[in-house]
Amino acid sequence: MREVGIIGAGLTRFKEHWDSSLRDLFVEAALKAIDDAEAPEIDSMYVGCMSSGLFVEQEHIGPLLADYLGLKNVPTVRVESACASGALALRLGFMEIASGMSDIVLVSGVEKMTDCDDPTSVLAAAADIENEAFFGATFPALYALIARAHMDRYGTTREQLAAVSVKNHKNGAKNPDAQFQREVSLETVLNSFMVADPLTLLQCSPITDGAAALILVPLDMAKKMKDRVVKITGSGVASDTIALHSRKDITSLEAVRLAGERAYKMAGRKPEDIDVCEVHDCFSIAELIVVEELGFVEKGNSGRFIEEGNTEIGGRIPVNTSGGLKAKGHPVGASGIAQVIEIYKQLIGNAEERQVKDARIGMAQNMGGTGASSVVHIMEVAE
Amino acid sequence: MREVGIIGAGLTRFKEHWDSSLRDLFVEAALKAIDDAEAPEIDSMYVGCMSSGLFVEQEHIGPLLADYLGLKNVPTVRVESACASGALALRLGFMEIASGMSDIVLVSGVEKMTDCDDPTSVLAAAADIENEAFFGATFPALYALIARAHMDRYGTTREQLAAVSVKNHKNGAKNPDAQFQREVSLETVLNSFMVADPLTLLQCSPITDGAAALILVPLDMAKKMKDRVVKITGSGVASDTIALHSRKDITSLEAVRLAGERAYKMAGRKPEDIDVCEVHDCFSIAELIVVEELGFVEKGNSGRFIEEGNTEIGGRIPVNTSGGLKAKGHPVGASGIAQVIEIYKQLIGNAEERQVKDARIGMAQNMGGTGASSVVHIMEVAE
Repeated sequence: MREVGIIGAGLTRFKEHWDSSLRDLFVEAALKAIDDAEAPEIDSMYVGCMSSGLFVEQEHIGPLLADYLGLKNVPTVRVESACASGALALRLGFMEIASGMSDIVLVSGVEKMTDCDDPTSVLAAAADIENEAFFGATFPALYALIARAHMDRYGTTREQLAAVSVKNHKNGAKNPDAQFQREVSLETVLNSFMVADPLTLLQCSPITDGAAALILVPLDMAKKMKDRVVKITGSGVASDTIALHSRKDITSLEAVRLAGERAYKMAGRKPEDIDVCEVHDCFSIAELIVVEELGFVEKGNSGRFIEEGNTEIGGRIPVNTSGGLKAKGHPVGASGIAQVIEIYKQLIGNAEERQVKDARIGMAQNMGGTGASSVVHIMEVAE
Repeated sequence: MREVGIIGAGLTRFKEHWDSSLRDLFVEAALKAIDDAEAPEIDSMYVGCMSSGLFVEQEHIGPLLADYLGLKNVPTVRVESACASGALALRLGFMEIASGMSDIVLVSGVEKMTDCDDPTSVLAAAADIENEAFFGATFPALYALIARAHMDRYGTTREQLAAVSVKNHKNGAKNPDAQFQREVSLETVLNSFMVADPLTLLQCSPITDGAAALILVPLDMAKKMKDRVVKITGSGVASDTIALHSRKDITSLEAVRLAGERAYKMAGRKPEDIDVCEVHDCFSIAELIVVEELGFVEKGNSGRFIEEGNTEIGGRIPVNTSGGLKAKGHPVGASGIAQVIEIYKQLIGNAEERQVKDARIGMAQNMGGTGASSVVHIMEVAE
């Protein structure tokens, strides 16, 4: 297998884009990435997108987006794994280069969520439609069940849950691409509208439009093109039951743990090696459980771990320096790529006010549904 | 790159399945493939599906289908490129093995089309929604434009178009998995309901439910497991403008030509080497143009070529021995895999009444929309 490096990244602002379509958003992010990479050409293109069909009634977006980008004739693949679509697109682009089939690959994610009447019911298509959504379950409700079980079993408190949002808004306030660039207090989070007890509005990621793109090349080529190159050293994917009620233990996210283990094994790394990490905080409870499953803290202790500041910038393991899905925004198909872009910026020392000092090894964890699919990547500064 | 072999295949009957859901169909085909391959385990899974979102309101079908198949925790990827989703799933599974990341990969396609009120409008999501479908264009109308242009420029006749359906129904009558297992006369095809002049009903592929699956392994492993092994020697993908009106010449399918050229180059083969071929005859005119683009006959001469029997079983290059999309049926996401299954059966000498004598090299061509994406694979009997 050939080693693979990242040489460029591009991102739209994450927000409600009332004046841009799916194709506009994609083209903006892709052109920025191509520009940043100074890529002479593109051999192949991957797009992660959860549901262009239900959101904007458009499928077949691989060739459509290549066409609008001016890349007619290029091979294109659209990948879907609900909110993990972006990271999966990255993994496939990585494999295409690793296999030797292509050299310069654009990997991207996009979602245009605000052009539809009822985004929450579209998102419910990531659950088991026949056995969950049909009976009225929505994701806030399902994650609230997980949160209550975690509180019951481990004594996790409402304040600890809310602390996730406080931290992520604090980081998002330093991110010019974030949807919400303002800090919020613990009281504000706790007193915001109750969506599904214990999850208040400010513990739920927002509805967002946006796109993100990266340019991947073989590592040898990357080193010739750029002074500071980031290589992808680990890639792990795993799945779990689609329905939450089929799981033995709803306080665990088995697919996250397995995807993490697979990525650590491939990279030859341990949790202690990771300097900075982006995780899938679609709801506050998700971030708590994910930091447990990735091995940063013992099972059940994440509430205190976060409350004590260990995941702040400057803490033991900074988590979601970008602001996370909560503050940066969550255009579902784009989030997995945007997470990797944050890690890429951290590793090339380009994260501005959010910079983690001496960050050399980073991780990004993306997931779909209530963790029925998860993708984890490890990236490192190439020597 | 490691060489890749096929060791098993499974298919549901293609028809309107009123008593089976998307997940039922997938599980049936996947279990048949696993059984046929005698695969000890599955490392990874790909599913091609055009629009489970719009057809049955379910996304995130990678982990959902793995779960129902009893493969919880396996990495899964759902791929979409409209009606070319199936072949693209095959290409990605091929790459995963070629890259060395996995050994035993299930590649599949599925579509459940009959559970929705208006499948034609769902299929229109494969066109440019903003610039084609919004103005009332449907695929029968778009392909009718292509057909009229081909008739005008090359003198192709209504009888030559209809001859495609006559041949494909003749082959489908010998295929126990086909939706329509009966022959039709040229008169019947010409006199059937006019959908979009010159395309009559019997020149349009039907609405179908179905699933198809293949098991891929490294070629070395395949040879140890099976007496007669088929290897994948060429894989080509290309895209074209999404909208028909953006093309210089609507009598050509540039993505098909390019995908074919890329597959021929990778396999080191020429059109004359191909013994049997499955092509994407979503409408009769599509088969005519595709046999031109793949180099089996000179541009513009496909009408006479087919009328003279060159593409019959026993002819110069048998095309769509399975019955093609027209007679076998077209569950859109499954079609690309089902095409490869027909070639696989031909190459292992298991095509029963449809067997092409001494078939050693086969090709399958799958496409999306009006050819905005196309995927071509070449397969050969492994010595």
